[in-house]
Amino acid sequence: MLPFKTLIIVDKDAQQAVYLQIANRIISLIQEGILQPGTYLPGSRILADLLQLHRKTVVAAYDELVSQDWIMAIPRKGMMVATNLPEIKPRSFQQPQEAYQEEPGFSYNNISTQFQVKTKPGPKRLIINDGFPDIRLAPMDEWIKECRSIIRQPYNRRILVTSPAFGNLHLRNEMVNYLAGTRGLNIKADNVMVTRGAQMSIYLAAAMIIKQGDNVIVGNPNYFFANLTFQQLGANLLQVPVDENGLDIGAVEKLCATKKIRMLYIISHHHHPTTVTLSAERRMKLLEIIRKYNLAVIEDDYDYDFHYSSSPILPLASADHGGNVIYVGSFTKSLGLSIRIGFMIAPSKFIDKTAALRRLMDLGGDNLIEEALANMLSNGTINRHIKKANKSYWERRDLAGELLEKKLDKYAQFKLPLGGMAIWLQFNKKYPLTKVAVKAQEYGLYMANGERYSYMSTPINAMRFGFASLNEKELHTATDILAKVLKDRL
Amino acid sequence: MLPFKTLIIVDKDAQQAVYLQIANRIISLIQEGILQPGTYLPGSRILADLLQLHRKTVVAAYDELVSQDWIMAIPRKGMMVATNLPEIKPRSFQQPQEAYQEEPGFSYNNISTQFQVKTKPGPKRLIINDGFPDIRLAPMDEWIKECRSIIRQPYNRRILVTSPAFGNLHLRNEMVNYLAGTRGLNIKADNVMVTRGAQMSIYLAAAMIIKQGDNVIVGNPNYFFANLTFQQLGANLLQVPVDENGLDIGAVEKLCATKKIRMLYIISHHHHPTTVTLSAERRMKLLEIIRKYNLAVIEDDYDYDFHYSSSPILPLASADHGGNVIYVGSFTKSLGLSIRIGFMIAPSKFIDKTAALRRLMDLGGDNLIEEALANMLSNGTINRHIKKANKSYWERRDLAGELLEKKLDKYAQFKLPLGGMAIWLQFNKKYPLTKVAVKAQEYGLYMANGERYSYMSTPINAMRFGFASLNEKELHTATDILAKVLKDRL
Repeated sequence: MLPFKTLIIVDKDAQQAVYLQIANRIISLIQEGILQPGTYLPGSRILADLLQLHRKTVVAAYDELVSQDWIMAIPRKGMMVATNLPEIKPRSFQQPQEAYQEEPGFSYNNISTQFQVKTKPGPKRLIINDGFPDIRLAPMDEWIKECRSIIRQPYNRRILVTSPAFGNLHLRNEMVNYLAGTRGLNIKADNVMVTRGAQMSIYLAAAMIIKQGDNVIVGNPNYFFANLTFQQLGANLLQVPVDENGLDIGAVEKLCATKKIRMLYIISHHHHPTTVTLSAERRMKLLEIIRKYNLAVIEDDYDYDFHYSSSPILPLASADHGGNVIYVGSFTKSLGLSIRIGFMIAPSKFIDKTAALRRLMDLGGDNLIEEALANMLSNGTINRHIKKANKSYWERRDLAGELLEKKLDKYAQFKLPLGGMAIWLQFNKKYPLTKVAVKAQEYGLYMANGERYSYMSTPINAMRFGFASLNEKELHTATDILAKVLKDRL
Repeated sequence: MLPFKTLIIVDKDAQQAVYLQIANRIISLIQEGILQPGTYLPGSRILADLLQLHRKTVVAAYDELVSQDWIMAIPRKGMMVATNLPEIKPRSFQQPQEAYQEEPGFSYNNISTQFQVKTKPGPKRLIINDGFPDIRLAPMDEWIKECRSIIRQPYNRRILVTSPAFGNLHLRNEMVNYLAGTRGLNIKADNVMVTRGAQMSIYLAAAMIIKQGDNVIVGNPNYFFANLTFQQLGANLLQVPVDENGLDIGAVEKLCATKKIRMLYIISHHHHPTTVTLSAERRMKLLEIIRKYNLAVIEDDYDYDFHYSSSPILPLASADHGGNVIYVGSFTKSLGLSIRIGFMIAPSKFIDKTAALRRLMDLGGDNLIEEALANMLSNGTINRHIKKANKSYWERRDLAGELLEKKLDKYAQFKLPLGGMAIWLQFNKKYPLTKVAVKAQEYGLYMANGERYSYMSTPINAMRFGFASLNEKELHTATDILAKVLKDRL
């Protein structure tokens, strides 16, 4: 008999069940040729004794191996390694080659890889992100529970095969209620398309609207992924200033009066990156312009659900815009999960056409995930989570504000945002963020160096200080490190 | 006191916990104005008696309401409905309008909505799909287990915030091993991009390669979504015949010799829709052409993992193609889940550029879902599932073949496929599938009418009979119904 005691090592603390560990190890032994076809395995009692396990565990391992055809039960003789092994070896028609060099033989289209990040497996570390939710507060267990309950219903297992390009119908219906209750939107399910995240909605809407060379108005600064997207689709970007009341609507009007403008992109609630809110007065004026010029508008409302000291202002999409505002939002932040679900609200025929484009890019969404979200909307889980998270984020915003004011007073300015997950922190020119970020990293604090915000813009020496994902202790540590870095000579 | 016994009805059999039902009902009563700010709720003991529940349940409901700020605990007086209610009413700046008609005010780009399907909530019914896995066999519980275990590790909760455009690094590394072991691919992680499904990989690769007016060679017939995708991107499609040995490579060569060809799309393993396999001889010839003309190729290998009576042939991507073959595949069928994960294998710089485009379309994948798949690859769950599913599908293919031969002999022809999940069933012209499908539906059998396969092709009167998702009983019923429909005069 082979020395099974040393050949099969089990780890009772491992995630994988012990019987599967045994089965997988035996498969390896067969594949490596150590266990030859036709040889017999020890009886389950013997192997159990050798490995100091319950016999049932070994029997389960053998059952698994039989079901996979690796071994066969031979009456009165025991378990034999199959002579006709299940691993079907692929037929090769040519010697495999190292076929992939860095570049293909053919040429291909160009695209900007600016600000591309390749993720590395990072250490546990302190990060100031640019405004993400705290995944530690997310209703993960409820989400898992919903997924499991959907999976366990035999009826659902059948319908879950589909991936609707428009999104899950149950979710679209729930969203009609949700968006009516929170944003005053008066819509039907056929005005709703569910996408992978808000970014997919932005891309799709822009791809449906923009033709090569079209003029598109954006803020200066602007969400840089939006700029990159419109440029990729052939747009000619026209930038208008952003001040404390949001986009300069007077400048928008001047452009509309003098040039043919195809589209306007606006983040009316919490502008990215500066967090300012478009004032009610400017909204009225903008709606007039939209109707007058039949201007196509993408209204990106990525964090409407998070507001603290003041009430949110209803989106442009809720007012009279002649069907010209495509409203884009996301549940990613509301859920706080690593599950990205966004949506687009638009006239129904526009949704039909856009779904046809989405089908080509990505047949449809994951029905299971979308159904789980629909259930969490209807049973109140999402609302409860948002209320609780809002409380935490409000406290964190206030604490972050206090700490930044106390510790960074000489180095940076900010205005506390009304909502959202980030403070727009503008550093004095003497302290370039590119250097601050490098220094901070030496103390274990990771943060972006702000370069992204200067894309196409007058140089900006500012960062989005994402407070929502940092708890009290982390806020103290992060601001301490920042203060230390700034006090040191850079 | 209000009549709480009738105002608060709990359903102990409902999915939602009873304490949440009570809390949500009280929130509704507050919102409806039935419970006014400043009024007191009954003591927990009293309400518990009224509702015939344990007092702890009512206490939990009150705790929930306090945590959401709907009620406040007033010392020695009890629970009072908050005077400063948490529901922040959004500020409206204009009377909300019914803003969405069918069409927007602006005009927009055109796109074909051919074959668009709007999902309706369907009855439980018998469906012949065009080759999907049986979701009843999918390792759902293992998947849930992986998700839960990832979520429960505090370390993971931090890293799960990211959505890498290239895909989860752990998964890309696992795929290197998986694709080496199953497909003879000699690649590194930076040759791999994980996408939402194979369709996203096809779209991205094509968008990187095709320019307006470029010639692209496809089969006649061909996977119709691929045709629609290339046309949307501006390609001029050149069709070559498909016979029992796959794409006519002689015809491909003639086209390459006479025209400037930008790209070739090929499904070498189980051609869609006809299920034929490209012969080894044609593969050798095609590789020569690819190298000679530096032809960009998308090799779509959507169901390589499923093969029965014969061994699979290694993909073109495993041989010497000069880096010109972009290999596209999917785990959707291997998992059998409603979770769609696909991949693209290509030279590393091409992957870099393509990831930049993907970022604009859909920032990145769901890291949680991809991490779960990575774990299922490394612990052998996927391999075990594929082996087991292959056994079932093999049996089902054989049974489907027997039944179709016996019952549909006079009406339709087919050749049993070597693998995959569908039989290409060609009906005699006397029995138009458009009519057969309508009739079958009257007997409770739902199937496509084959129109999709004729897109851009000589008219085809055939269907993909997806056997994999039908168990023994369902295969009998489905073929019985088909036979009955055909025997009746149509």
